[in-house]
Order: sequence, then structure tokens, then C-alpha cells
Amino acid sequence: MSSLHELKLLPDDPETLCNNISCATNLRHAVAHADYVQESITEDLNAKKHLFKELDHLAKPKCILASSTSTISTSSFSGDLKGKDRCIVAHPLNPPHLIPLVEISPAPYTNKSVVEETMLLHNTANQTPILVQKEIEGFILNRLQAALLLESWQLVKEGYVSVSDLDKTVKNGLGHRWAFMGPFETTDLNAKKGISEYAQIFGEAYRKMMKNSEYAKWDDNLINRVNAVCRDITSEENIEQRSQWRDFQLMELLLHKQLMRDKLGE
Amino acid sequence: MSSLHELKLLPDDPETLCNNISCATNLRHAVAHADYVQESITEDLNAKKHLFKELDHLAKPKCILASSTSTISTSSFSGDLKGKDRCIVAHPLNPPHLIPLVEISPAPYTNKSVVEETMLLHNTANQTPILVQKEIEGFILNRLQAALLLESWQLVKEGYVSVSDLDKTVKNGLGHRWAFMGPFETTDLNAKKGISEYAQIFGEAYRKMMKNSEYAKWDDNLINRVNAVCRDITSEENIEQRSQWRDFQLMELLLHKQLMRDKLGE
Repeated sequence: MSSLHELKLLPDDPETLCNNISCATNLRHAVAHADYVQESITEDLNAKKHLFKELDHLAKPKCILASSTSTISTSSFSGDLKGKDRCIVAHPLNPPHLIPLVEISPAPYTNKSVVEETMLLHNTANQTPILVQKEIEGFILNRLQAALLLESWQLVKEGYVSVSDLDKTVKNGLGHRWAFMGPFETTDLNAKKGISEYAQIFGEAYRKMMKNSEYAKWDDNLINRVNAVCRDITSEENIEQRSQWRDFQLMELLLHKQLMRDKLGE
Repeated sequence: MSSLHELKLLPDDPETLCNNISCATNLRHAVAHADYVQESITEDLNAKKHLFKELDHLAKPKCILASSTSTISTSSFSGDLKGKDRCIVAHPLNPPHLIPLVEISPAPYTNKSVVEETMLLHNTANQTPILVQKEIEGFILNRLQAALLLESWQLVKEGYVSVSDLDKTVKNGLGHRWAFMGPFETTDLNAKKGISEYAQIFGEAYRKMMKNSEYAKWDDNLINRVNAVCRDITSEENIEQRSQWRDFQLMELLLHKQLMRDKLGE
């Protein structure tokens, strides 16, 4: 937290913020006065079902019960609960304290006011909530990541590009645009008349390009090959240290984007 | 160029740089003393074939003949030329003066020294060349972009997410990591033991998630719907102005990344 403080990324001084946090050693005390609960236990359906049953029993009737899950739908862990209409998924991205995006994914039966309050809460906390309008496996973010990852692994597997050149393609190419524009705005600005012109020129070409993409299983041989390159870059004992490098980069990027918003008056 | 200069992104003062540029009104004069030619005409196979035939005739025997094409392979425009082994694709990303990445895609017959010199030239010019090891439609970058775009359009088409929330998912989420890490390093740092652990946990899940992705044609109805949202954000007459905003963001990001490299001693 000291780096967050030094970089002026905290809304208050660390001591004040720490005083707002209290720990509890049993669930009843933890949720007794809560208006909002964010569950972040292990990624296991039965464990979540069990915990939400307890939460539904222990929390105040109007308390929102949210899950950080990245793979389990609201419907699948809350369908049998009396208070199922106050259950919702609020999925942050790793590392959650340094990346603004949070996916809000309600079940069809989740109360509209629960959706609105969850969106509002995240907005107020300076995060960027987006709404997943219908339940879908992987929500939005991991589907986009999966599409890019499957193509990346396949291109490496088939010998079209090295692991490190593929990473460069994103971090020194596509990622420069995606750091402040989504894929729609990026392509909207790549044709003089905007995205409809772009879609007419490239839509079918892209579809044909990817039509025969059959993604093979990432077998042990391939995984070992990719892992060997990654371990050359960062040895296993240095992963933790490299993650701190990543977090520092993410903090500085947040700060940079704040400065840009100030500079541009956005 | 004034902004590039103000932001100290130029290797020299603008006047000196401009004095290094000369224009020619005929091809013979343009290429007479060239060691490297970068073709950037319209994206049309016959036009490229015709021009490369002339270039092969007019340029010095050791001059490298490169194309900026994003969709045409080296083999398809140079296969019939006497000097085909000095032909190559060097594909930059829009806007090319503000994004480092350039894809170098030789034909199977391109001379190895031509590949090496083209890579070296781009490195020397502070760009980031990557090597496409075998010819493939869309090279590397546009295949990655296509994978992400097709999934994005499909999610919007099927009503899972709005255009603007999808853009947020990238620019406030995935794009924060991809601004300085590729997809391999991103996932390598998302499991304690690195990418092999990550691949074992998520590989099959991602493949199953995307297995039934049948990407529908972007029909007029869908294109109009997406375009309407984009035009609400930026009207057609403001696309040029918004592109200047993009370019300013890209310049500031280049600067930010330079500062980060200095700060981290990379």
C-alpha cells in the first residue's frame, strides 16, 4: 500500500484507510451489519453454494451478496436460495486493486435494484463496472482473453511465430491502442467514415481468415515448450518479483491515465 | 511533427530530419541510390505486382524491396520476379509513426540476409520488428485482432453486452496489462508456478468456452447498430479530430513507456 500512497493513488492516507478495515473470525460477526458482501473464497461450486446458503441465512435481508468468481454463474450457486434475488457476480481482474474493470453479471432473477446498487458501489469506489446482460460462460472479459490466447498458442504451436515475438505483437502493437481504446473505437478510427466502412472492408476478410481455426488441445509438449521460454525470461523463483514489477507498471499506468484525463479535461 | 518534437519523441530537430527527406516525381529517380525501398501504395495485388516488377528493374541489385501491405503475402506479389529473393513484407500498424511494432514476413525464398537487414533497419529506427516465420493470412497481429473482434461483435450481436461496455472491458481491463505485457507473460504471472500451471488450469476451459463459437456475418443491421453507438460517441465529422486525440494518447504512452524503462533501468 506504501507504493499506492507514494503514487497518490489512494483516496485517503493509509492509516485512515486501515482503520476502516476490521477482521472477523466468524461469519456471523463478519456480515452482521453488512450492506454488501463480496465473497472471494476458492473457485469451487459446492464451496460457494455452501457459503451463500450461510450468508443468505446470516446477512440482513437487504444486504447484497456478491461473488468474485471468474467461472461460476450467479444462477448456479444461488438458484436454490430464499434470497436468490439479492445474489450477483462482481468479477474483478487480477490484480484487482490495480485494474479498474469489474464485470457485473446478475442471474435472470436478480433484483434490478441489486444490479443498480452494485454498479453504483463500484463506480463510487473508482472502479469501472460493466454489465453482462445475459449469463454466459467466461462472462465478457475471459471470452475476449480466450479468443486471443487460443489464437496465440496455435500460432506458436504451428511455428508461425516465437513466444517472445507474439508477446511483442501485443505489448508493442495492439496493446498500445487497447490501453485507452476498446476494439470498437480502435477500428472506428481506422477508416475515414468510421466503423461501418471498416466493417464493410474487413468484416468478411476477418471471418474467412479465422474460419478454419481449429484450436488443438495445449498438450504437455507444447506447454513445456512455452513454459521453457517463459522461464528463460523469468525463473520460477522470480515470478513473485516479476509480479511486483507488473503491479508497479499497472500503478504507473493508472497514474498516467489520470494525468491524461486531467490534461485532456475528460 | 511539432507535437512529436515537443514531447521529445524525435531523434533530432525537425529541420534536420526534414532535410533528410527528398521527394521525387518519377520512380527511377526515387530508387536510383536506394538501399531499401518501402512500398506503401494502394492495397491491390495487381498494382503491387506491377510496381514491384518496375522496382526490381530500376533498383540497385542489392536494394531490399519491402511492402507495407497488411493482407498480401510476399510470395503472391514477387514470385515471378528475377530479384524475388530481395522482396519482403514489413507491415506497420496504424498510425505507423506512433506504434513501434512492424511485422517482417518473408517468402520462403527471401534471402536470409535480406530478412536480417530488414529486422536490423527497423530496430535501428527504434521500431520493434517481429518475424513471421512462415507465411500466413493476416500475419500475426491481424489474426490476433480478428480473434478478439469476431468475439466482440458476436457478444454484442447476441445481446450479452453493449458496445460501450465491451470497449471498457478492453480499455479499462485487458488493455492495462497488454500495454506492457503480451498474453503469454500476462498469464505466466497469473499462476504461482507460471504459465504451465496456468495452462493446466485454464487451457481446456478456454477451449471448451470458445468451441462452439460460430461467427455470423456482420450484416447491415448489426453494422448499423454498432455504427449508431460509435457515431453517438464521435460524430462522422469529428472522426479526424478524435484520431488526433488518439495520436496524442499514443505519443504520451510512448513517452510514458520510455520513462518507465528509464525508471526501471530496462
